[in-house]
Amino acid sequence: MHDTRTIDVKESIHSENDRIADHTKHDLTHKGVFAVNMMGAPGVGKTTVLLNTIERLKDFKPFVIEGDIESDLDTQTLLGRGVPAVQINTFGACHLDAPLVHNAARNIDFGEGPAILFIENVGNLVCPAEFRIGEHIKLLICSVTEGSDKPYKYPLAFGEADIVLLNKVDLCPYLDFDEEFFVKGFRALNKEAPLIKVSGTTGEGFDEAAAVIERMAVEALDHHE
Amino acid sequence: MHDTRTIDVKESIHSENDRIADHTKHDLTHKGVFAVNMMGAPGVGKTTVLLNTIERLKDFKPFVIEGDIESDLDTQTLLGRGVPAVQINTFGACHLDAPLVHNAARNIDFGEGPAILFIENVGNLVCPAEFRIGEHIKLLICSVTEGSDKPYKYPLAFGEADIVLLNKVDLCPYLDFDEEFFVKGFRALNKEAPLIKVSGTTGEGFDEAAAVIERMAVEALDHHE
Repeated sequence: MHDTRTIDVKESIHSENDRIADHTKHDLTHKGVFAVNMMGAPGVGKTTVLLNTIERLKDFKPFVIEGDIESDLDTQTLLGRGVPAVQINTFGACHLDAPLVHNAARNIDFGEGPAILFIENVGNLVCPAEFRIGEHIKLLICSVTEGSDKPYKYPLAFGEADIVLLNKVDLCPYLDFDEEFFVKGFRALNKEAPLIKVSGTTGEGFDEAAAVIERMAVEALDHHE
Repeated sequence: MHDTRTIDVKESIHSENDRIADHTKHDLTHKGVFAVNMMGAPGVGKTTVLLNTIERLKDFKPFVIEGDIESDLDTQTLLGRGVPAVQINTFGACHLDAPLVHNAARNIDFGEGPAILFIENVGNLVCPAEFRIGEHIKLLICSVTEGSDKPYKYPLAFGEADIVLLNKVDLCPYLDFDEEFFVKGFRALNKEAPLIKVSGTTGEGFDEAAAVIERMAVEALDHHE
């Protein structure tokens, strides 16, 4: 895995991926669609965060691309709630890439008016952070049940995030989550990104999360006009 | 990413990896060392499980190889408890591979008597399942906080496991974990592997976990003699 040929192939995969990601982002921006790459470890509550955020959007219609290795459980949940959602199955691959998202996004009819396309990546705190998929922002979801050392162990995901949601804060009384240690590790990697505490169980924090995402969407789309 | 050259490179990486993994496993067996590849998502409690299991071992000395992208927080914790531990940092790579483990394992002095080498893989429920690293068994750690749909979404990790520990069961009263759905999904992929409920907070289940691992170690090493 350490020879020059392998590295060359990897680099060419990344540059081709980025070319297609730029293309997707450009297309979406042109259609008035803001794309959010949602990343987080397995079981961190990505779909719950998605549902809670979507129902609080004021000025944007939601659309969802669900990325999973296998299964379409989350897509069925979303469709059951009336959210337009399409499924990508990677069948083994540990992250979404730009070609997969490009093919899924171009088949969505976004209709009139501004929209936010939430792209739920494969549950994985490592590989998705390495691949741009056409997003305007990266939204990282982590949870207090994962422990407070995660920024130290997974620096790329925390460093690259444009917004971080710390989920499951309703469970804090039953855990020894060290918030100060968490925030210190996170801010060493990332000075700018808003960090918002949320709970999929109580709904806490999602008014703010939805408002921040809509503000980012307005900025990105206005800036383009 | 979909052309033939890339696939060829990937296949040759896997076969070279497996050759080295076989070599490591052979060496360890010869030394009376049983190797456990510990896999699980970020924050699932791998190091806590490790500490709880190690202190209940009866007939085997514990050794640990810690795999992390960055940081040596867990290795420091283990060394502080008097457990012989060495750190592998992958600096970006999302899983341990056989060459990394081979180099780390051959520098450990296992001394006399039977030993168990716990190899804590990078926190990731996808990629580590694809790479053999010289282990006798794969131990998968998941947790009730992750939700009950994980076997359906990450079938390779659950299908390949030789033993599964379901951690954080002390938090069940505060969650809506559907155990029947979890077990049904798991058993559809894996008929054999013991599934043991544990809690790093209360210590529940670790007597059984340690006993099962020691029994597997005796079987593997006796079978070799």
